Amino acid sequence: MATADISKSSPPLKDELDIVIPTIRNLDFLEMWRPFFQPYHLIIVQDGDPSKVIKVPEGFDYELYNRNDINKILGPKSSCISFKDSACRCFGYMVSKKKYIFTIDDDCFVAKDPTGKEINALEQHIKNLLTPSTPFFFNTLYDPYREGADFVRGYPFSLREGAPTAVSHGLWLNIPDYDAPTQLVKPRERNTRYVDAVMTIPKGTLFPMCGMNLAFNRELIGPAMYFGLMGDGQPIGRYDDMWAGWCTKVICDHLGLGIKTGLPYIWHSKASNPFVNLKKEYKGIYWQEELIPFFQSATLSKDATTVQKCYLELSKQVKAKLGKVDDYFNKLADAMVTWVEAWDELNPSAGGSTGVTNGSAK
Amino acid sequence: MATADISKSSPPLKDELDIVIPTIRNLDFLEMWRPFFQPYHLIIVQDGDPSKVIKVPEGFDYELYNRNDINKILGPKSSCISFKDSACRCFGYMVSKKKYIFTIDDDCFVAKDPTGKEINALEQHIKNLLTPSTPFFFNTLYDPYREGADFVRGYPFSLREGAPTAVSHGLWLNIPDYDAPTQLVKPRERNTRYVDAVMTIPKGTLFPMCGMNLAFNRELIGPAMYFGLMGDGQPIGRYDDMWAGWCTKVICDHLGLGIKTGLPYIWHSKASNPFVNLKKEYKGIYWQEELIPFFQSATLSKDATTVQKCYLELSKQVKAKLGKVDDYFNKLADAMVTWVEAWDELNPSAGGSTGVTNGSAK
Repeated sequence: MATADISKSSPPLKDELDIVIPTIRNLDFLEMWRPFFQPYHLIIVQDGDPSKVIKVPEGFDYELYNRNDINKILGPKSSCISFKDSACRCFGYMVSKKKYIFTIDDDCFVAKDPTGKEINALEQHIKNLLTPSTPFFFNTLYDPYREGADFVRGYPFSLREGAPTAVSHGLWLNIPDYDAPTQLVKPRERNTRYVDAVMTIPKGTLFPMCGMNLAFNRELIGPAMYFGLMGDGQPIGRYDDMWAGWCTKVICDHLGLGIKTGLPYIWHSKASNPFVNLKKEYKGIYWQEELIPFFQSATLSKDATTVQKCYLELSKQVKAKLGKVDDYFNKLADAMVTWVEAWDELNPSAGGSTGVTNGSAK
Repeated sequence: MATADISKSSPPLKDELDIVIPTIRNLDFLEMWRPFFQPYHLIIVQDGDPSKVIKVPEGFDYELYNRNDINKILGPKSSCISFKDSACRCFGYMVSKKKYIFTIDDDCFVAKDPTGKEINALEQHIKNLLTPSTPFFFNTLYDPYREGADFVRGYPFSLREGAPTAVSHGLWLNIPDYDAPTQLVKPRERNTRYVDAVMTIPKGTLFPMCGMNLAFNRELIGPAMYFGLMGDGQPIGRYDDMWAGWCTKVICDHLGLGIKTGLPYIWHSKASNPFVNLKKEYKGIYWQEELIPFFQSATLSKDATTVQKCYLELSKQVKAKLGKVDDYFNKLADAMVTWVEAWDELNPSAGGSTGVTNGSAK
């Protein structure tokens, strides 16, 4: 019934959601998304040369920021925003004034479900975000809040209210999100399997969060969605969304918030160059082996009652424990602090309201 | 390619797997399963009146145990095997001499996939059991060992070997496995969603294990698959498989073993009576609220290097911590000990070999 209600009424969350798109090229890909995206406001973050003009198809409501704009708005704090890397998208999260964010890459097209129907990815993300998550116990029939599904026998009744959903992680048909070594080994692998499920990533479990097709509740988790220091002048790339995902998961677990993955699918049109990717990734692949145990064992104090406080605690731990892996993590830890300061400057009223404590959010 | 290999060759694990079926009626349902089950050996555990004759369709290779047989084989230790409850099926696990067990209820028929093809549930369980699990990190494209899938970007390379798979938990189309209250509230709900996925339940996360369509590696986890004291003379029913699942999950997490859920589906033909179920379940529904925190916080010592040792440690904790919830748990804790003793009597050589320690199993 939820499906019908949302489809028939005006676009859901029309005035409460921004679509954030990082790009270096004309946004022709929006033509395909027009029926779904046109009612919404777009925040375009232009990467690379700010003198280049990015063309946006007519009829879309948007604001566009290039590097000059970022420098002007953030001043010295703009150092925390990556350059020549799609990690710059997180600037869009910061300047948004809406409750929800959907972010999508400009090489992602509309996918079709097995019946051939075009998938309204945004609508599914909104459903995911507006229904609770189940991080404390696994439901074998997947999302129990979906039409035709429920909690199965043996699911504790006290846990059936669920937890507020902070993040909705969507997937990709066609080109899967593989790392460079896997791309090199399986150049022709395509994802053709449509898995008709949404599920919650259980508490205590880390996952690889991809930024290609992602939505989140900015009020609940926004300040943790920092995509780090990547690209120009940095030793790694392609770990921006991963970094955000690991930080976000640790903080969601601490604050009692949920993260869902699964539907919706988008059609990922083209594989990036695996040789270029390998150059960007190789240090990350190595460092990751230290990062995962770090995040798996990270704990936050009882005083960390807001996302900002959690994030600052985490930045201290990054410096203390990962600084010895590479000096890069000292810089990153500092940038995490700068990011939160910049966030609070641009979102002055949110400092307290973002402070969701366990179970009290909705 | 694994699919083709298995299909073309002789039935996989033909001499290494027993099918365990608890029943109170003639096994006509086997006719439908004939193409898939006939090559395998069946262990039928007859519940209820032992003087009743259970008819098994011709051509199946089976052994059948009724209550008299159980009493004769186990002597006083037969007290640990439930009567007038399908929990008695675990006797079949104990007398099997094979490495793998598949257990199925006699009201479960062959389901069809979305293309209309009949699903060979056993073949899918075998695939699940013979490929590793990924309990330490979540893979967003589901089972990375499946054809056409892999680990996504950001999945640590050191974890890509996975863990040995101990359990494969299959699902149900048509009648979902709901508790009595949900059955009463949604009498007409049917599961029609075919989710084309297999996934690992992450380490540290409990799940509701249903015994209707279940396979496991007896050598890796057999002694933990005790279905408890249910039915005749006991205060609860319908928590047999749940109990086994919670104990098994805690022990798998401790020993570094994996549990998968998802495919294969069976067609669950008829809903049990919700009023009868409510009577069986109501204490369980109440106690469960204490059981889940107990299992969530249960830890096993470093000395618990075999499933048996783990299980005996767990039985002590059940007595110490759940005995005060109800005296039933004192009886259950004693029965857990009796079960392991009986297991070791019937499986004398397995005492050491079942002792899989972290990472050393395969």
